[in-house]
Amino acid sequence: MPLNALGRDIPAFIEGYGKVKPYRGAFVLQPSGNVVGPRLRVTNADRTDKVLPGLKAAIAASGLKSGMTISFHHHLRDGDSVVNQVIDACAEMGIRDLTIFPTALFGVHRHLIDHITSGVIAHIWGSVNGPIGQLISAGGLGAPAVLRSHGGRPRAIMCGDVHIDVAFMAAPSCDRYGNMNGVQGPSACGSLGYAFTDCQYADCVVAVTDNLVPYPNAPISINQTCADFVVAVPSIGDPAGIVSGTTKVTRDPLRLLIARYASRLIEASPYFQSGISFQTGAGGIALAVTAFMKEAMLRKGIKGSFGLGGITSYFVDLLREGLVDKLLDVQSFDLGAVKSIAEDPRHVEISADMYANPWNRGAAVNMLDVVILGATEVDRDFNVNVNTEADGALLHGIGGHQDTAAGAKLTIIAQPLLRGRIPCVTDTVYSVTTPGECVDAVVTEYGITVNPRRADLVEACRGIRDAPVISMDELADKARRMSGPMDPVETTDRIVGVIEWRDGTVIDVVRQLKKK
Amino acid sequence: MPLNALGRDIPAFIEGYGKVKPYRGAFVLQPSGNVVGPRLRVTNADRTDKVLPGLKAAIAASGLKSGMTISFHHHLRDGDSVVNQVIDACAEMGIRDLTIFPTALFGVHRHLIDHITSGVIAHIWGSVNGPIGQLISAGGLGAPAVLRSHGGRPRAIMCGDVHIDVAFMAAPSCDRYGNMNGVQGPSACGSLGYAFTDCQYADCVVAVTDNLVPYPNAPISINQTCADFVVAVPSIGDPAGIVSGTTKVTRDPLRLLIARYASRLIEASPYFQSGISFQTGAGGIALAVTAFMKEAMLRKGIKGSFGLGGITSYFVDLLREGLVDKLLDVQSFDLGAVKSIAEDPRHVEISADMYANPWNRGAAVNMLDVVILGATEVDRDFNVNVNTEADGALLHGIGGHQDTAAGAKLTIIAQPLLRGRIPCVTDTVYSVTTPGECVDAVVTEYGITVNPRRADLVEACRGIRDAPVISMDELADKARRMSGPMDPVETTDRIVGVIEWRDGTVIDVVRQLKKK
Repeated sequence: MPLNALGRDIPAFIEGYGKVKPYRGAFVLQPSGNVVGPRLRVTNADRTDKVLPGLKAAIAASGLKSGMTISFHHHLRDGDSVVNQVIDACAEMGIRDLTIFPTALFGVHRHLIDHITSGVIAHIWGSVNGPIGQLISAGGLGAPAVLRSHGGRPRAIMCGDVHIDVAFMAAPSCDRYGNMNGVQGPSACGSLGYAFTDCQYADCVVAVTDNLVPYPNAPISINQTCADFVVAVPSIGDPAGIVSGTTKVTRDPLRLLIARYASRLIEASPYFQSGISFQTGAGGIALAVTAFMKEAMLRKGIKGSFGLGGITSYFVDLLREGLVDKLLDVQSFDLGAVKSIAEDPRHVEISADMYANPWNRGAAVNMLDVVILGATEVDRDFNVNVNTEADGALLHGIGGHQDTAAGAKLTIIAQPLLRGRIPCVTDTVYSVTTPGECVDAVVTEYGITVNPRRADLVEACRGIRDAPVISMDELADKARRMSGPMDPVETTDRIVGVIEWRDGTVIDVVRQLKKK
Repeated sequence: MPLNALGRDIPAFIEGYGKVKPYRGAFVLQPSGNVVGPRLRVTNADRTDKVLPGLKAAIAASGLKSGMTISFHHHLRDGDSVVNQVIDACAEMGIRDLTIFPTALFGVHRHLIDHITSGVIAHIWGSVNGPIGQLISAGGLGAPAVLRSHGGRPRAIMCGDVHIDVAFMAAPSCDRYGNMNGVQGPSACGSLGYAFTDCQYADCVVAVTDNLVPYPNAPISINQTCADFVVAVPSIGDPAGIVSGTTKVTRDPLRLLIARYASRLIEASPYFQSGISFQTGAGGIALAVTAFMKEAMLRKGIKGSFGLGGITSYFVDLLREGLVDKLLDVQSFDLGAVKSIAEDPRHVEISADMYANPWNRGAAVNMLDVVILGATEVDRDFNVNVNTEADGALLHGIGGHQDTAAGAKLTIIAQPLLRGRIPCVTDTVYSVTTPGECVDAVVTEYGITVNPRRADLVEACRGIRDAPVISMDELADKARRMSGPMDPVETTDRIVGVIEWRDGTVIDVVRQLKKK
């Protein structure tokens, strides 16, 4: 079996996935040719109402057949009921062997397990958080799950790696001609960023809404020129699972310490200056970094330019207080963010393509100064794993990890060195999500560990007085000493997960766990 | 020579245009296959500034060569200086034989005449208002001008009829990474609707701005994923020519009478009810119709849904007064409209594709109840000419005429029967822009003339008490009596203009005028 550029053992062909393009480096592969062209489908002047009486009518009208590919977005998160409703309807209509192409699946989608077992769903290409991930790790899906980053996914659609037959788009607000937004209605979720490319490239788009409004809907996130059919259902989801009331900064003293160290690194870096931009996501440590940075910005009189990515109320506060000028929002994490994107024109909805696609004319991640990311593991080469847990189970998606790490000028992994007795820093990660060449520093409760590739940052850290600086070897040795020997993960040879780098090459695979 | 479906004599091949697809009817041709895919061009993470030092640097970087096709939008109207600046630079760089593909040219572009004469410009595909039209009518361009409607133009790009090598996009506001809007800066023009499809499909996009703002610009009309290069110039145009201070309702009693009759027709039609939508453009009569309709709506307690198309302050007033819910704006005609689209989220910018493309999944014109349009001539079959004047000169573009006529449920041509002694209603129009099957009524100072195809409207007009109803034959006879015999236009055989129907078939051609 060939080794890819990170020395991972990847077969040239994977059953249920196809021919493998091996990972060659973060920025090596460059495309040529053209983006694919979507199917021409005409709605003539005499058809002024795209509403069909129900999901089954829309599935029939869409031409969906067994063996086809259907896509979904995950903006309704753990409150989503559209995926389950659509697959139930397909099952009742005798449609089988589907490839589902969601941006992500959550706990609520454990409902799909029966459809996987019965053969309605044959392939899952998307993030598999939680129960479906457990099922796949145990070998419960006939073909490997294919994981792509938030930027890799639209790239895959636009470059023809994935052809969507029908996109079923949960729309918190939609008119009879298919103009959608995510900011109005009982299931408001804020940005619809992940859904844009699906709607632009699918052969057929079915908007599914529980809030059918008079034409024309406004604001318009995804417009009528994409939509073939509209279906009104009683509910597209459970508001309690769609957005959390608030995302919360960690109160754990250890995690606060890590956040403080990460903040010191940022302050010491050349990027802590007027116009700084950053992404912190919704993790507890990262949110605490935001709070510390805010203090530092106020103290030094620095104003930032933009906050990027998944947006929380903490970023909304920064916007309101004038500490950043704009928010670029691909996913609104909490009620405060949903409200802000609906009301504040400086809070801008962006597509996943604009957010993170490596192969367009410039994604927002390229403009990013600092990103704070998490990890389940980091190795001595700074390679990061976010997909599998220490027990080898495939439980997490890639999200924007690869994209922001590749784009940002300063990529920081902020994570405790140990969780229980499981080390976060190891000799070799169990699977690679993001290569070490895109990771600039790891920050743990033991201090700041800079990637030696970044001699400039190593130098900048010499001035830091109130945070320890520790080398990767020291850190890894410490982790090994503290955790003691770990049982190796036992797997079969069968590949159950394929992790693509954002350019479509395969950076790693995940194998089926042996039964214990 | 074959005759097309309207009996117009069109050759199967036109020198400088190519093979002709003859017009077959307004809704006959239906496409299959796929939209074209734009060129993949990557801006990698290490390039965070797309600004080049000037137009010549951008032209060089774009790879523009002699014989290629470049596009422009006309949102700066008679104030535009970008077209002239770009062509001057091309000329100085020795680039020749260009096809220019503007949405429209205006008086200010008479500057291009020297570049046409010297061979820098070989083809013009776009509306040629004024001096360039005069030049072309006299045979001053080596190849025919190709006229397309606002919807036919994006269709032609998306279906591959026109391939844009480089789009030069005048951007009233732009950041260093290419996020553009039209609502900010000294050259604010409002909607950038006509520019969207060019930016999505051109091999290379150069944003030209006189208002370079910090990243990220907001609002974003056309985003960074489209833009290859950004050039800052001292000025992109003269504000006085970009937007008029205000568009004005006619004060001419004859035109006011026509507007009142048209308003009566609308009131008598089945569309005058809650939720009515309409487009009136910026013509004096049409604006007066808006004023009369407003009175009628207030009188009868009717509220409309949306106003469409080129938007004026009159429509902004309707929005503010709650007489329409939304404005869908492809072009902002006056300062009031520019201000409103910048501030009011119910005033929505739409692309020409969404406005009027006949071959997408549903254009806004399809949702339109009533449109008021002008004409230079209408014939007994209700065919309309808007492109040529009575002397045969090609002086006007198609605009949204074809698209709204094809889409709206009630298409009204409102025009005086005579202008001077030139009749507006004739036996046969000199050139056909819009076929009679899309025209429901002609309203003149002599009353309402309904197309007999619309038996329902003929019936509805029986109830009108305060406006005369007159048949087309009576009207045409009256026009002929009043105008007396007209001198026939004398032309050579050479075709100087090709008028495409919105589906890309040729509905008519315009021939070179004989020297007098």
